[in-house]
Amino acid sequence: MKPFLGYLKEENMSLLTDFYELTMCAAYFDNKHFETATFDLFIRRLPENRSYFLFAGLEEALDYLQSIRFTEEHLVYLKTQGFKEDFLDYLRSFKFTGEVWAMPEGTVAFPNEPLIRITAPIIEAQLVETFLLNSINHQTMIATKASRVVEASHGRSVIEFGLRREPGIDAGMKVARSSYIAGCRGTSNVLAGYAYGIPVFGTMAHSFIMSYSKEIDAFRAFARTFPEKSTLLIDTYDDLAGAEKAAVVLKELEAKGIRVGGVRIDSGDLAESSKKVRQILDRHSLTYAKIFVSGDLDEYKIAELLKADAPVDSFGVGTKMGTSADRPYLDGIYKLCETQMPDESFAPIMKLSKDKFTLPGRKQVYRFTNGDDSYKKDIIALVDEPAEGEPLLIKVMSGGELTYKLPSLEEIRSTASENLQKLPSKYKVLTDAPAYPVEFSGKLQQLIETVKRQITLKEINHTV
Amino acid sequence: MKPFLGYLKEENMSLLTDFYELTMCAAYFDNKHFETATFDLFIRRLPENRSYFLFAGLEEALDYLQSIRFTEEHLVYLKTQGFKEDFLDYLRSFKFTGEVWAMPEGTVAFPNEPLIRITAPIIEAQLVETFLLNSINHQTMIATKASRVVEASHGRSVIEFGLRREPGIDAGMKVARSSYIAGCRGTSNVLAGYAYGIPVFGTMAHSFIMSYSKEIDAFRAFARTFPEKSTLLIDTYDDLAGAEKAAVVLKELEAKGIRVGGVRIDSGDLAESSKKVRQILDRHSLTYAKIFVSGDLDEYKIAELLKADAPVDSFGVGTKMGTSADRPYLDGIYKLCETQMPDESFAPIMKLSKDKFTLPGRKQVYRFTNGDDSYKKDIIALVDEPAEGEPLLIKVMSGGELTYKLPSLEEIRSTASENLQKLPSKYKVLTDAPAYPVEFSGKLQQLIETVKRQITLKEINHTV
Repeated sequence: MKPFLGYLKEENMSLLTDFYELTMCAAYFDNKHFETATFDLFIRRLPENRSYFLFAGLEEALDYLQSIRFTEEHLVYLKTQGFKEDFLDYLRSFKFTGEVWAMPEGTVAFPNEPLIRITAPIIEAQLVETFLLNSINHQTMIATKASRVVEASHGRSVIEFGLRREPGIDAGMKVARSSYIAGCRGTSNVLAGYAYGIPVFGTMAHSFIMSYSKEIDAFRAFARTFPEKSTLLIDTYDDLAGAEKAAVVLKELEAKGIRVGGVRIDSGDLAESSKKVRQILDRHSLTYAKIFVSGDLDEYKIAELLKADAPVDSFGVGTKMGTSADRPYLDGIYKLCETQMPDESFAPIMKLSKDKFTLPGRKQVYRFTNGDDSYKKDIIALVDEPAEGEPLLIKVMSGGELTYKLPSLEEIRSTASENLQKLPSKYKVLTDAPAYPVEFSGKLQQLIETVKRQITLKEINHTV
Repeated sequence: MKPFLGYLKEENMSLLTDFYELTMCAAYFDNKHFETATFDLFIRRLPENRSYFLFAGLEEALDYLQSIRFTEEHLVYLKTQGFKEDFLDYLRSFKFTGEVWAMPEGTVAFPNEPLIRITAPIIEAQLVETFLLNSINHQTMIATKASRVVEASHGRSVIEFGLRREPGIDAGMKVARSSYIAGCRGTSNVLAGYAYGIPVFGTMAHSFIMSYSKEIDAFRAFARTFPEKSTLLIDTYDDLAGAEKAAVVLKELEAKGIRVGGVRIDSGDLAESSKKVRQILDRHSLTYAKIFVSGDLDEYKIAELLKADAPVDSFGVGTKMGTSADRPYLDGIYKLCETQMPDESFAPIMKLSKDKFTLPGRKQVYRFTNGDDSYKKDIIALVDEPAEGEPLLIKVMSGGELTYKLPSLEEIRSTASENLQKLPSKYKVLTDAPAYPVEFSGKLQQLIETVKRQITLKEINHTV
């Protein structure tokens, strides 16, 4: 049997791209286009109910840019797809040599703001588009969603629980990482614990209870093996009957001096159930026993539970966070904004079609704060304008080499926490948040108008 | 730099699991539970607007079951998580030794029908739950979604285009594979072409057009490199002006004897635009030139376009199919249905909580057809009942070894095509399809009632 994940090797990521990236590159090559170009990776719009993005995925993007190569097997395959020898020779020694500026992972960002800016020979800059979008779109989507769940939980623990419904192996890993960045306390995914050091959590499923002929026997068996980790699942048959049995077993543990357990409720009306279960536990003087709830949770349901004063200590959040179920994609795009002219000067580029346009020129994002250090507004400006505010894009690669010390996952998590704290509360409500002000600098506005006029003159007419 | 996808290695998949699978297994081990158990993997409910599932993902599931192992590094990590030496010793020589029955990939299936049935020592059967669900939930979700898109396209080609917005690397590969199984003609994902032999498609993006100072220069450059693959993207500035320029370049190719090209429209009102563009092409006697449309498509939009008589030859479908955007998860679950008793007999198990229950006993699914070979109804029965109809579950593993010749991707695609063809049209409408009849056999119904009574007597009371 061949290794079943063979295709997911680092060396194959050069081919994890849309075919048109390669055909465009071949056409650039054939037509001797080797000029330097700059692309922005940004997100055009906020999805409904989102009011900011929490940027994640840069580490993988930089790993990719450093390692992208084509093997002989790749070239044999590409030859069968109609690529010519001279272009395949070019790919044989392909290496990304560009300059990259990016926001650090964990930065709060907004529509139209470049998250990553790439300046490289146009073939290189073009070729990396699909992978970068795949990586950033997903991880930023999940970090954003998870930050909303954490916010809604008002300081209670949130554990990411969605591996079984997340779309594939890599998604399972990235959801664990991105939601930890966003403030989740841990994950159920053991490999994410092993690979990233994220705290892992979990105790038992209904099948464990059902494999014993009596529910209380299952509780006792688990408590024997994990006396310090006994969060007993009480709703296999009936939540309140289950709570009574759990109380017996928790009292048995207490008699041995162990007072750390609790119960999990995974179905039914969680607000009502948690209140009745709390009463049962308290009646047995188990006031220290924790109530952990799970089952179809997201930021909206958590907000409802807390509004109903559900006495919940922590939340297990799975499917709806792990798939960003109310909006399972981001509109992240990667657009050419500047190209080098035959005279070596740089020309700003913008896309202008009926309903959308992109921002021309090489840009920086500046953040302005209020007196209390909270975020006030951002300005997108051209890089050669006099700087004001805090620049958000930092140089992370030069000449294809990393010039940036990759922060640890804990550092990224701190950056996210600090960013989210500085974002005023009004932008963190779950629905109907006002728009955070993102302005274009005077020079950028002028450039937009100039380029618009040029395009209109040159291209928008029905004759050739 | 360490390989950035290191964690995605086959040998690590044993840890791609929820922590509670391991704690449950440790508790089984500690309490000397080694009895044989049977679990069903099935989907409880049809999502809104879905009327069937197209089963996909079995190949990866079987690869996983054959290869799952724990390394010394894994055991070192698990020790830090509180697992005891004797259980770690058990994991050191862990191997899946069970029997597996499954539907072939490409089978049309319905709620409550076991898709995979696993019989193994309970620790082994429990441990594999999360990976199997992660794999089957995602791939079946995408195959199902893509089959709807293909159905809506009424024989026109559908190309899967969503890599940049699909949730991660592995999702990108699985979406390409699952949508190809469902009848898509190909993908934009080059690695899926390389790894699976799926046909790959694509020509150019807006950035390619914008990198040239004139749109027609970009068309000419592309046509020079790929004269046989010139699907020219015409909406960078204005679709109709773009179509006029494309017509000029297609006529230039025609003069060289090449008559295979076409245009792509990626924005705006695709019905209106495709009609006007068709007129422009026809006016230039380019009746053979194809119109390819893309941009925010799914089965609903494609149905609208065809209802509006849009003269479209093929569809590029991305984000909404690749994320199953209207319902980005399936409720696939994995439930204990039978366990071995101390006297070696097997006891049926069911989960019974307030709002849901599972089907007890070891089961088979039988399909019945109408006189024209179209599907009539399914019956879920116990394995020891006299068989009628066509059994859908076949034995794929025995004693942990594959007993099934894995079909090629093309064979799976044929199975799917045949299954979908035999499914009567009324079940393939995009909304408000009737429910396909899935009945429980008489013996299964009796067993459900018997087990329900036992549980009620034993567990549903508030005393212990």
